[in-house]
Amino acid sequence: MSDFAIIAVISIFTAGLTVSFGALGPALGEGRAAASAIAAIAQQPDAAPTLSRTLFVSLAMIESTAIYCFVVSMILIFANPFWDAVQAASGQ
Amino acid sequence: MSDFAIIAVISIFTAGLTVSFGALGPALGEGRAAASAIAAIAQQPDAAPTLSRTLFVSLAMIESTAIYCFVVSMILIFANPFWDAVQAASGQ
Amino acid sequence: MSDFAIIAVISIFTAGLTVSFGALGPALGEGRAAASAIAAIAQQPDAAPTLSRTLFVSLAMIESTAIYCFVVSMILIFANPFWDAVQAASGQ
Amino acid sequence: MSDFAIIAVISIFTAGLTVSFGALGPALGEGRAAASAIAAIAQQPDAAPTLSRTLFVSLAMIESTAIYCFVVSMILIFANPFWDAVQAASGQ
Amino acid sequence: MSDFAIIAVISIFTAGLTVSFGALGPALGEGRAAASAIAAIAQQPDAAPTLSRTLFVSLAMIESTAIYCFVVSMILIFANPFWDAVQAASGQ
Amino acid sequence: MSDFAIIAVISIFTAGLTVSFGALGPALGEGRAAASAIAAIAQQPDAAPTLSRTLFVSLAMIESTAIYCFVVSMILIFANPFWDAVQAASGQ
Amino acid sequence: MSDFAIIAVISIFTAGLTVSFGALGPALGEGRAAASAIAAIAQQPDAAPTLSRTLFVSLAMIESTAIYCFVVSMILIFANPFWDAVQAASGQ
Amino acid sequence: MSDFAIIAVISIFTAGLTVSFGALGPALGEGRAAASAIAAIAQQPDAAPTLSRTLFVSLAMIESTAIYCFVVSMILIFANPFWDAVQAASGQ
Amino acid sequence: MSDFAIIAVISIFTAGLTVSFGALGPALGEGRAAASAIAAIAQQPDAAPTLSRTLFVSLAMIESTAIYCFVVSMILIFANPFWDAVQAASGQ
Amino acid sequence: MSDFAIIAVISIFTAGLTVSFGALGPALGEGRAAASAIAAIAQQPDAAPTLSRTLFVSLAMIESTAIYCFVVSMILIFANPFWDAVQAASGQ
Amino acid sequence: MSDFAIIAVISIFTAGLTVSFGALGPALGEGRAAASAIAAIAQQPDAAPTLSRTLFVSLAMIESTAIYCFVVSMILIFANPFWDAVQAASGQ
Amino acid sequence: MSDFAIIAVISIFTAGLTVSFGALGPALGEGRAAASAIAAIAQQPDAAPTLSRTLFVSLAMIESTAIYCFVVSMILIFANPFWDAVQAASGQ
Amino acid sequence: MSDFAIIAVISIFTAGLTVSFGALGPALGEGRAAASAIAAIAQQPDAAPTLSRTLFVSLAMIESTAIYCFVVSMILIFANPFWDAVQAASGQ
Amino acid sequence: MSDFAIIAVISIFTAGLTVSFGALGPALGEGRAAASAIAAIAQQPDAAPTLSRTLFVSLAMIESTAIYCFVVSMILIFANPFWDAVQAASGQ
Repeated sequence: MSDFAIIAVISIFTAGLTVSFGALGPALGEGRAAASAIAAIAQQPDAAPTLSRTLFVSLAMIESTAIYCFVVSMILIFANPFWDAVQAASGQ
Repeated sequence: MSDFAIIAVISIFTAGLTVSFGALGPALGEGRAAASAIAAIAQQPDAAPTLSRTLFVSLAMIESTAIYCFVVSMILIFANPFWDAVQAASGQ
Repeated sequence: MSDFAIIAVISIFTAGLTVSFGALGPALGEGRAAASAIAAIAQQPDAAPTLSRTLFVSLAMIESTAIYCFVVSMILIFANPFWDAVQAASGQ
Repeated sequence: MSDFAIIAVISIFTAGLTVSFGALGPALGEGRAAASAIAAIAQQPDAAPTLSRTLFVSLAMIESTAIYCFVVSMILIFANPFWDAVQAASGQ
Repeated sequence: MSDFAIIAVISIFTAGLTVSFGALGPALGEGRAAASAIAAIAQQPDAAPTLSRTLFVSLAMIESTAIYCFVVSMILIFANPFWDAVQAASGQ
Repeated sequence: MSDFAIIAVISIFTAGLTVSFGALGPALGEGRAAASAIAAIAQQPDAAPTLSRTLFVSLAMIESTAIYCFVVSMILIFANPFWDAVQAASGQ
Repeated sequence: MSDFAIIAVISIFTAGLTVSFGALGPALGEGRAAASAIAAIAQQPDAAPTLSRTLFVSLAMIESTAIYCFVVSMILIFANPFWDAVQAASGQ
Repeated sequence: MSDFAIIAVISIFTAGLTVSFGALGPALGEGRAAASAIAAIAQQPDAAPTLSRTLFVSLAMIESTAIYCFVVSMILIFANPFWDAVQAASGQ
Repeated sequence: MSDFAIIAVISIFTAGLTVSFGALGPALGEGRAAASAIAAIAQQPDAAPTLSRTLFVSLAMIESTAIYCFVVSMILIFANPFWDAVQAASGQ
Repeated sequence: MSDFAIIAVISIFTAGLTVSFGALGPALGEGRAAASAIAAIAQQPDAAPTLSRTLFVSLAMIESTAIYCFVVSMILIFANPFWDAVQAASGQ
Repeated sequence: MSDFAIIAVISIFTAGLTVSFGALGPALGEGRAAASAIAAIAQQPDAAPTLSRTLFVSLAMIESTAIYCFVVSMILIFANPFWDAVQAASGQ
Repeated sequence: MSDFAIIAVISIFTAGLTVSFGALGPALGEGRAAASAIAAIAQQPDAAPTLSRTLFVSLAMIESTAIYCFVVSMILIFANPFWDAVQAASGQ
Repeated sequence: MSDFAIIAVISIFTAGLTVSFGALGPALGEGRAAASAIAAIAQQPDAAPTLSRTLFVSLAMIESTAIYCFVVSMILIFANPFWDAVQAASGQ
Repeated sequence: MSDFAIIAVISIFTAGLTVSFGALGPALGEGRAAASAIAAIAQQPDAAPTLSRTLFVSLAMIESTAIYCFVVSMILIFANPFWDAVQAASGQ
């Protein structure tokens, strides 16, 4: 395998791995937070606005870790500095 | 294996891995949120609209991590920049 | 192994892996949601229509992640762009 | 190993893996849903018809993911397009 | 190893793996459903016929995933199309 | 290794793996069902006959998956069609 | 390694693996059933004979899966048909 | 490695693996049964003889799976038929 | 592979692995903290400001471990000292 | 590696593995039984002698599986028949 | 690979692994502590200052293990004595 | 690698593995027993001497499995018979 | 790879592995202890000083295992006797 | 790799592995014991001295398994008899 190919291969594999593995934790964490919020609203309907607000802030915070992964995955596919360097080095 | 083939191989494998592994967390998380919402509606039927709304926003948020994975998988199959580069490089 | 064969091999393996691994999460998540819905109907029979509706929307949402996997698996078997490219390249 | 053999090998292995791994999630999910339904009927015998209906719809939904796996497995054994292509290519 | 042998080897291994791994989920799921049914009958002896019927339908549904695996395993041992093709190809 | 030996090796290994791995799920499932039945009889001694009958049907159902594994294991040791074919082919 | 040795090696390894792995499930399952029976006798001493009988039938049923494994292990060590065939073939 | 050595090596390794892995399940199962029995005696001191008897029968039953493993391990070290055959074959 | 390529490869793979694995713990931990906070607000609405403040400080603390990972990942992609050293050494 | 060395190596490794892995189950099982006994004595101080006796018999039973492992480990280090045979064979 | 490259490679990989794996435990531990603190404040709002203080000391203590990992990771990237030694040795 | 070195290597590795893996189970088991004893003393302070005695006997029993591991580890480092044999054989 | 490099490589890798893996247990253990202490203070505010003192002693005890790991890691990076010996041996 | 280097390598790796893996169990076990003690003190403040004493004895006992690991790790780094033997043998 040429250097060209090996960097493409590892970028593809890592991009997929990053986004799929990075979805595991946030999805479970958000599921837990949402389940708790829904149970709380049923128990205390009057506090629904406060609870929703707290839930959405928490979901955004948790989602951020998934977004880090998505960002890294997109960088690896579309703005990979190593790929650019190899292409520049080999004059392609 | 030629460079051509190795990139195809890793793209196929990563696309499948990404979408299947990325389905694990969201499915479990959504199952938990849905289970909680259904129990909450049974306990407090009057709050059903609020609960449903909260549930659907949460499901959408959780589903988003599965969709990231599906998007990356589709990119790897149908719009893979490394594949295009290799095809351009080898003049195929 | 020729390039021809290696792409066939990885497509077959990935198609099977994708659909089987992708069935794990949704099946468990749906089982949890369904168990919760059934317990809720037994506890609050009057709310059965609302509960059923919420259950079916949730099941559809969870099933969607399994369907992503099935779609990717079918694409890899019957509409694999890399396979077509290799066949075109080798004139077969 | 010839290309002929390697595709047969991977098809056999993937068919078995797909159907056996794909049985894990649905069997556990259905077991959970059924356990919940039975407990619910014992608790609320009057609602048995509604509960049974909800259970069977849920079981069908969960079973669908096992059926996806069985379908892919059967395709790989009896209607494998890669196998047909290799047989056509090698004139066998 | 000849092609002949490698297909036999993988068929034997996959047949065993399929049936043994495929027994895990259904056995656990059936155990859970049966445990729930027995507890329910003890709690509500009058509903025993309904409960038994629901249990047996559920067990049949769960057992079906184990039977898929057994069927695939038997096909791989006694009606393996790849084996037949290799035997035909090598004139044995 | 000759073809002769490799098929013997894989048959021995698979036979053992199948029966031992296939014992895990049924043993746990039966343990759960039995535990539940015993607790139920203690709680409702009058229903003991019904409970025992339900337990034995369930145990038989669960045991069936272990028996599938034992059957496949015995076939691989004493009635292995691939072994017969190889012996016929090599005239031994 | 000669064919002779490799079959001995795999028979030894499989015999040990089968009996040790096959002990895991039954031991846990029997522990659970026994724990349940003991708790039940303490709670309902009058039903001790019925409970003991149910326990021993269940233990026998669960133990049967461990015995399958022990039988296969003994067959592999003392009545291994592949070993006999290889010894016959090599005239030893 | 000579045949002589490889059979010794695998016998040693398997003997150790069998007895150590085979200790895991029985130890946990016996721990559970014993814990249950002790709690039961504290709760119902009058039934101590019945409870002890049930406990010891159960422990013996569970211990039997560990003893299978120990027996196989001892056979592999001190009465290994494959070792004897190899020693006879090589005239040592 | 040249030194140039191997450092690029490992940097890409490590960057993805770091950010995706590093998302698992924080997402689960934040999900737990948020779930607890929402349940607490529902139970004691008057203490919502105190609870929110405590929650946000805790989320920030937990998020910090995810941010460490993101920072290391970014350093590996965009400010990798080893990459710079290799580029300097090879005069590229 | 000479035969001499490989048998020493595998004996050392197996001895360590056996005793360390074999300590896992008994330690957990004894911890559980002891915890249960202590709680039972606190709850029913009058039954302390009966409880202690039951505990010590159980601990001895559970410890026996750890002792099997220790015995096998000591045999492998100090009374290894394969080692003796190899030493005798090589005249050392 | 030159010595130069292999040390760079292992430093990069270890730096990422250290910080990401080291984030798992602290994040889960902090999540647990925070969840407990929030529940405690809701239950006893008057003790909020004491609880917050205890929480923050605990979080700092737990965070310290994550910081150890971050420090080691930074040392490996920016102040790696082995890298310096190799650079000095090779006169680069 | 010479025989001399390989036995040293495996002794070092096994010594470390044995003592570290062998610490897992006893530490968890002792933690459980101690936790139970402390809760029991708080609940029944008058029985503290009996409880402490039972605890210390149990801890000693559990610790014994860790000590087996430590003993084997020390034997492998400081009194390794295989090492002595190899040293004697090579006249070192 | 020269001896020089291989020792550097393994020291770097082990240093990172040690500190990150060694952070897992202490962080979880401290999280559990802290959670318990916070819940205890909320339940019994008057005993806060005693509880805090017990907590801090326990945290220090648990932290000590993390510190062992950090110390070993630092020794491997900055005071590695094997590294010094190799440097002395090779006169570098 | 020379014998010299391979023993250094395995000593370094084993030292780190031993101390980090050996920290897992004790940290979790101590966390559990401490959590139990703190809850017990809150519930029964008068028994604090007895509880503390029991806790510290237990922590010391559990810590001992971590200390075994630390001791073995230190021996491997600073007083490794195999290292000394190799150095003596090679006259370094």
